[in-house]
Order: sequence, then C-alpha cells, then structure tokens
Amino acid sequence: MAQGPFRLAEIVGRLGGELVGDPTVEVRGVATLRSAQPGDLSFLAQSKYRTDLAATRASAVILPQGERDATSLPRIVCRDPYAYFAHVSQLFHPPRPMTPGVHPAAVVAPDVKIPASASIEAGCVVEPGVTLGERVVLGAGCFVGEGAAIGADSRLHPRAVVYGACVIGERAIVHSGAVIGADGFGFAPEGGRWIKIAQTGRVVIGDDVEVGANTSIDRGAIDDTVIEDGVKLDNQIQIGHNCRIGAHTAIAGCVGIAGSTTIGRHCMIGGAAMIGGHLSIADRTIIAGSTVVTRSLGRADTNTSVIPATEVREWRRTVALMRGLARMSERIRELERRLAGAERER
Amino acid sequence: MAQGPFRLAEIVGRLGGELVGDPTVEVRGVATLRSAQPGDLSFLAQSKYRTDLAATRASAVILPQGERDATSLPRIVCRDPYAYFAHVSQLFHPPRPMTPGVHPAAVVAPDVKIPASASIEAGCVVEPGVTLGERVVLGAGCFVGEGAAIGADSRLHPRAVVYGACVIGERAIVHSGAVIGADGFGFAPEGGRWIKIAQTGRVVIGDDVEVGANTSIDRGAIDDTVIEDGVKLDNQIQIGHNCRIGAHTAIAGCVGIAGSTTIGRHCMIGGAAMIGGHLSIADRTIIAGSTVVTRSLGRADTNTSVIPATEVREWRRTVALMRGLARMSERIRELERRLAGAERER
Amino acid sequence: MAQGPFRLAEIVGRLGGELVGDPTVEVRGVATLRSAQPGDLSFLAQSKYRTDLAATRASAVILPQGERDATSLPRIVCRDPYAYFAHVSQLFHPPRPMTPGVHPAAVVAPDVKIPASASIEAGCVVEPGVTLGERVVLGAGCFVGEGAAIGADSRLHPRAVVYGACVIGERAIVHSGAVIGADGFGFAPEGGRWIKIAQTGRVVIGDDVEVGANTSIDRGAIDDTVIEDGVKLDNQIQIGHNCRIGAHTAIAGCVGIAGSTTIGRHCMIGGAAMIGGHLSIADRTIIAGSTVVTRSLGRADTNTSVIPATEVREWRRTVALMRGLARMSERIRELERRLAGAERER
Repeated sequence: MAQGPFRLAEIVGRLGGELVGDPTVEVRGVATLRSAQPGDLSFLAQSKYRTDLAATRASAVILPQGERDATSLPRIVCRDPYAYFAHVSQLFHPPRPMTPGVHPAAVVAPDVKIPASASIEAGCVVEPGVTLGERVVLGAGCFVGEGAAIGADSRLHPRAVVYGACVIGERAIVHSGAVIGADGFGFAPEGGRWIKIAQTGRVVIGDDVEVGANTSIDRGAIDDTVIEDGVKLDNQIQIGHNCRIGAHTAIAGCVGIAGSTTIGRHCMIGGAAMIGGHLSIADRTIIAGSTVVTRSLGRADTNTSVIPATEVREWRRTVALMRGLARMSERIRELERRLAGAERER
Repeated sequence: MAQGPFRLAEIVGRLGGELVGDPTVEVRGVATLRSAQPGDLSFLAQSKYRTDLAATRASAVILPQGERDATSLPRIVCRDPYAYFAHVSQLFHPPRPMTPGVHPAAVVAPDVKIPASASIEAGCVVEPGVTLGERVVLGAGCFVGEGAAIGADSRLHPRAVVYGACVIGERAIVHSGAVIGADGFGFAPEGGRWIKIAQTGRVVIGDDVEVGANTSIDRGAIDDTVIEDGVKLDNQIQIGHNCRIGAHTAIAGCVGIAGSTTIGRHCMIGGAAMIGGHLSIADRTIIAGSTVVTRSLGRADTNTSVIPATEVREWRRTVALMRGLARMSERIRELERRLAGAERER
Repeated sequence: MAQGPFRLAEIVGRLGGELVGDPTVEVRGVATLRSAQPGDLSFLAQSKYRTDLAATRASAVILPQGERDATSLPRIVCRDPYAYFAHVSQLFHPPRPMTPGVHPAAVVAPDVKIPASASIEAGCVVEPGVTLGERVVLGAGCFVGEGAAIGADSRLHPRAVVYGACVIGERAIVHSGAVIGADGFGFAPEGGRWIKIAQTGRVVIGDDVEVGANTSIDRGAIDDTVIEDGVKLDNQIQIGHNCRIGAHTAIAGCVGIAGSTTIGRHCMIGGAAMIGGHLSIADRTIIAGSTVVTRSLGRADTNTSVIPATEVREWRRTVALMRGLARMSERIRELERRLAGAERER
C-alpha cells in the first residue's frame, strides 16, 4: 500500500522546505542514514550523526538549515528534519484506504446513521444511539456501545472496544485490544465486603489522539475521564477513572495512572512509570521511565526514582548497606561525640 | 438508563437509615459535596470534609451518626455514609437491562442450554458443554470455551474470553479484554530449548467477583488457579497459574502476581505492585502501590518498597551515594579505628 | 480431552529413558510428589525433594540417573526428570483436536487458500493475501490482517489479532488478547504537537514461539521487529518497535521492552522487568523480576535492582536516611578532617 516514487520537487511542493540539487531525483521510501539504499530519502536529525551522513547510500537527504552544505547529495533543507521526515513517512505510507460501507457480517442498530464514507468491517457491533463521523473506520470486530460517539476520520483497529456513552474526537487512532470506558475501580467497604459504586461518568477523548494496543481507559465515577487533544498513548497503559490527561502529552507503554489524577499539557511520561491517584502534575513535566510518582509535581522538572540494574551480588551488598543506614548514622554520631571529647581534652 | 428521581423516604425505605427532615424531598442523582447541584444527594464520609458540607449545594446529604446535626439540610443518618452512598449509586444506576435471548449473530453449540432469562449478544461464541446460569449476560463477541460454567446474574462485557473448563460464580462482572484461563507460563529447559508443560488446571472464580479490563488470569498447571468470593480485580492485572486470591481482597490496576502465590483474605494491594511466585501473604495485609514483594509476608502489616520520584539531578546524587555506601562504611570503620588509637594514647 | 491411561512401558517406548520395575503399571496423569494420588506419575527434579519422594502416593516416578535407587516404586530413570515430565504432560494432554474447516460464521477473503487441514472458527476475519500453513487453528474471533502469514501447526486462541504483513512461524501458540503488529510509538515533535511517523515494518516471529494473553508486540518503524525461534512470552508483555528477541529467550509476565532494544539468545527475564530502548543485552543474561535496565548489559550476568518490600515505617526511615546520604558523607569528611588535625597535634 506504499505510495510513490516521488520526485524531490513533488515532496517539496507538498511539504515545503528548500530543495538543493536535482529536483527530478526520485525517491521510493524513507530510511535512516545507515540503513538507506539508493532510492531512499534519509534525514539528519542531530549533528552527531554527520559521519553517517558522509557514508550514507541514500539518494537524497533532509537537512536542518545549519547543515545546508554538509553534503553534496540532493537535499531538502528545512527547520526540523525529524518532523519533516515524519510527514514524508506519511506521504509514502498513508493510512490504508478502506472500502466504505457496512460489511454484511457487522451488526448495526437500526437507528444508527452510518455516513456513506464510513467503513464498518465484519463482526463489528454498533449499539443504538451511536454517532459516527464521516470516514470513520471500525476495524473487524470492534464494539461501540450505546450512545457513544466517534468523530470524523477516526479509525479503530480490529477488536477495539468503546463502552456506551463514551466520546472520541476526530482523527483518532485506536489500536486493537484497547478498552475505552470500562468501569472505574470504585468500591466502598462494608462489613468486610466491597460494595460497588456505580461508575456513571464517561470517557471523553479529544481530537488527534492515539490509543495503543491493549490500553485501558476507565470511565469516570460521576464526572468524566478526559483525554485532551493530541495526547499519544502507547500500549498496555492503564488510566483510572476521573483522570485528565492534558493536551499533547505523550505517555509510553505500560504506564499506570491511578484515579482522579490530572496530568498537565505537553508532558512526557516514560514507559512503566506509575503515578498515584489524586495527584496533579504540572504542564511540561518529564517523568522518566519506571519512575514512581506518589506526590503532586508542581514544576516542569524531569523526575525519576529509577535505580539501574547491577550485578546481583553487588546489588545485594548495596541493599544490605541501605538497610544498615540507621546503624551507620548512629556510628557517625558516636564518632562525632567521641572526637569532640578528644578535642576538648587537648 | 439512570433511574429516579427518588424521594428520600423511598431511599430510606429501601436501604435503611434514619431520615431527618422533609421525606418528600426528591433527589435525581449522587455527587460529591463539592460538585453537587440542587437535586443531588451527597455524603459526608470523613469529618475533614465538614467545610465542604457547609458549602454544598446538594438537596440532601448522607451523614454518619456522630454528625447527625452537622447540617440543617434534609439528611439520611447511617453507620457508614460511604457504603450507603455506594448502595444509592446502584439505585440510581442499576446494571443496564438486557433483552433476554440469543442474538442471531451469536454461535452457540447445540448442546448448551441457554436459560430464557439470559442474554447472548451478537458475535458471541459458546462452545459445547458450557453451563450458563439464570440472567447471565454475555456481551457482544464474548468467547466461552468448552465445558466452562458461568453462574447466575454474571455479566461479561464485550470481547471477554473464558477458556474451556473454567468456572465463574454468581454475580460476577468481567470487563472487556479480560482473558480467563489462558495457559500458565510453564516450561522445562532441555538442551537450550523450552519444553511446554501442559497446563491442565482450571481457573475457578467465586461469587461477587469483578475482573477489570484487559486483566489476565492463567489456568493452573495441574491444580486450579482460585479467585475466592468477593475479590475485586482492577484492569491490566496478571495472575499466574496456581495462585489463590483470598476472599474480599481488592487488587488495583497493573498488579502482577507470579505463579503459585497465595494471597490472604481482605488484603489490599496497590496499583502496579509486583508479587513474586510461591509466596504466601497473610490475611489483611496491605501492600502499597508499586511495591515489589519477594518474600512471604506473615503479618497483617502495611508493606512498601517505593522510592518516590525526585528531580533527576538530586536523584543521581543519591544513587551515586548509594553505590558508594560500601566505601562510606569502610571510611567509618577506619575513623573508628584511628579514633580508638588516639583515645588510647591520651 | 486428556489421553491415557498409559502403561510405563508405553511411555518409555515413546519418550525414552530406562524403566525400572513393573512395566505394566498404568498411570492416568501427572502430579507433584506431594499432591500425587495412586495412578499418578510424579517426578523428582531436585534432590531437596527427596523427603517428598519417600512420602509420595504416586504409582510411579521419574528420577535422575543419580537417584536411580532412591525409591522402590516403579520408575523411569532419565537425564532430566523435569523435561521428561514436561513431555509426559503433553502426552496426557495433547492440544485439543480441532475439526478442520472454515466455520460459516468466519469471514475469509476469497483469495485466501485455506489448507484442508486448517480450522478457522466462528467470527474469524481473514483479510486478502493471507497465507496459512497446514493444520493452522484460528480460534473464534481471531483477526489476521492483509498479507500476514501463519506457519504450519500454529494455533491462535480466540480473539488474537495479527495486523497486516506480519509473519508467524510454525508451531506457534498465541493466546487470547495478544496483539501482534500494532503501530510502534513513533512521533516527531513539531510546534508543540506530535507528528506520527508511519510504522511500516512488520513483526516477524520464528518457529516454536508462544505469546501470552494480552501481550502486545509492535511492528517496526521501517525495519522489522523480530522474535526469534523458541522465544516464550508470558502475558501482558509489551515489546516496542524494532526490538529483536534472541532465540530461546523466556520472558515472564508484565515485562516491558522499549523500542530498538536487542535481547540476546537464551536470556531469562523475570516478571515486570522494564528494559529501556536502544539497549543491547548479552546472550544468556538473567534479569530478575521487577528490575529496571537502563544501560546495555554486555555479560551473561544476573542483574537486579529490586528492593524487597518491608514494613512501611521501617522503610520510611530507610528512605529518609537515603535522602540524607549527602549530609552523612559530608559529616564523615568533616570527621576525617578533624581527626587528621588531632593526629597531627599529637
């Protein structure tokens, strides 16, 4: 389904940038400087890869303005080669076109109006009251529950689940196995048992959001769980009820966010970070992978609590010494006391 | 699908408690003290929220017996307002009623007897030998494997999977993407390869259990994996083969429990805690979120191993100092030796 | 679906080993020494279980060559009793036979050639250009995307998803909820937004691989994500784009591996270990459960960074002391300075 080849002049015509060298050179795909073959378009994102640039077999490259003359290859000069490369990658690999229509093996409630441009694939179940935008694609076996809404140009990959009443904006991508709108984890203890608290809020997702495979986003208890515009969620993420994830925040795989936590805008959260409930994380905060966050973070710092792995015997010594810190502190205090005594006597 | 409004007298008639004030006041829903609007019923769970009580716009509130006169609003006085609130939330939001019957797009083995009160939605696959209780709901696209049994009033949300021979009790709620009964992770090494050990036990789940979205519970190797009555499991949890989770234990999202571990009754396990295999955890143990448990816990303590996140440069200093603990300990010993020498000389 | 009973002579005839004692003894299943009942075949994997051997009710046992005379029970003597036991468990519990054929409620693209020996169950969706080997089983509701290939004797459990163009070798087992080939997490920042980088590589999986329930393996960005022969993946694992997992490596549940990391052959990775991106892990490396790996590991060591849980007040003291390490180090330096002064004065 790849598109192309494209002449460099065509690419610059569509995406901008300054073309230096032969505009008729054709490229068939994108590649890193190292793996590029003749016919590929590559890019220099950071100066440290300049030796790769010298050795690349690419037919053309994308360069930042400061590196305009770093090669004699045909080149596209632009402000941000990595972002330019991302746009080019989409040019070569646009989302796979779907045949509009409702597959006969899909089950759609009679009251649901399916736009003629939408594609509902085999095995989908679309319940009453669902709203679907233009060009929505529901991959095979998706479930969209009663009263949910999915905005124009959004695409659910096979076997994604959207519970009733949840809302997804435009141009969303939801990967297989994602579950949007299951009940939050809310129970009141009573006499040694747990009484379920009805979870009656929704999940409300903005525009341009991507949700990774097997990621779960719980519906709110009373109010909604909110994922703002442009948020990117990787795989295997768990977002608890009543969280709010600020616009354009990116969250890597295996992250867990407990209920009622608010994450700011433009944050970056590394894989497997775990964020407690009822916290507030400032805009532009960076949280390193595998970090545990147990209190609110009020400044746009980089935060971590990771102890890198070491060889097991060395690590056991370190842990034993940590456990002995109270005694070590005590010995220092004793030394200070005795030394002060010795000094007084002089 | 919300029910109501209800007059306070009706609520007390159904759920008990003492009504103080106008019994004809009608409420349309529940809300926290802060977010409540006129028409809402709210609750005071802890005295520390008494200032919210003074400012609430709720039409009525649920109070503990000790706070009977803390407001002049119409009120329901009871022993445990939070549990009462949970019951009220269910009154307003009962599980969505399903139309009994088997959807024509479901595939049910001919030998399976479907109670007339049960609902089998589109895309379900129910294999031979399956037993389903009264009023069971299988959401769209569920799979129930050969010989499995699901008790009365249990509800599987869309795309839940129950492997063959597994047993689920009554009133269970299983969310989308949950996988119950996949093979445990059992292999024997032989000449650099892994030989699969057939996983022939079952998963046996008691009554009143909830299983969250995308949670996996593996079948036992020879004996069964057991989830006792009243256990509540959040999303993205992994429970290994031959585990036993004691009754009324609650486990938050992203927790992993390795094989053959026994968790006691009434435990509370925070999100992303990781519990090793072949351990035994005492009844009523509390394990903080993100804690790593590598040995059995024999007392009903609260356990943790979490290092809260800090700013990255500060943290790097701390890690470097931890790695230097052996040297630091050595320096203290040297100081003690030298000081003892100095003291002897006096 | 269990097979048997088998006489010991039959078992040795099929699997090898030396039979000591009555060859006509019949066994009906396998069990551990402790849980075995008459009629069971058990095994002694480690000498430390010899007291269990003395007390077992098993009808026969599998012993290592060095323990040939450790019991008077009928016995099979072999090099590796645990591996032998694994083979025997498969003898008693072979994979459930499936009826070949395409279920009428499956949707298979007209160009796909289904081997007569394959079984495509209800609700499956198989897109154009898919290649399926002999005796492939696609459980109910599986999705296999355009151009994907699945090798002979592979079995996908219900609701597994394989995105287009991905390749799975022979004798694979893929459990329910697994998602193979979703987009990697690749975005370029541009003016505060994230621009998606088309993910155009594949997932390529070798022979004899097992993939656990709800595990996700992302497709490569440009090149492929590769899982080599004999790799065993447990549940809830996340493998990022462009990773390569070396042959016969075993990875336990909840592990996350960020993009572009290469894991060697014959590694063992414990549950919930988290491995950063762009790293290289040597062959035969062991990584303990819950360990965080942030740098490449060049030797076949055992690595860990786990701090075992302790009672919460004790742990808080330890954390406070860790945070005070800089001050403690300062106090030691001060003591050294003062003591040196005192020593000079003598």
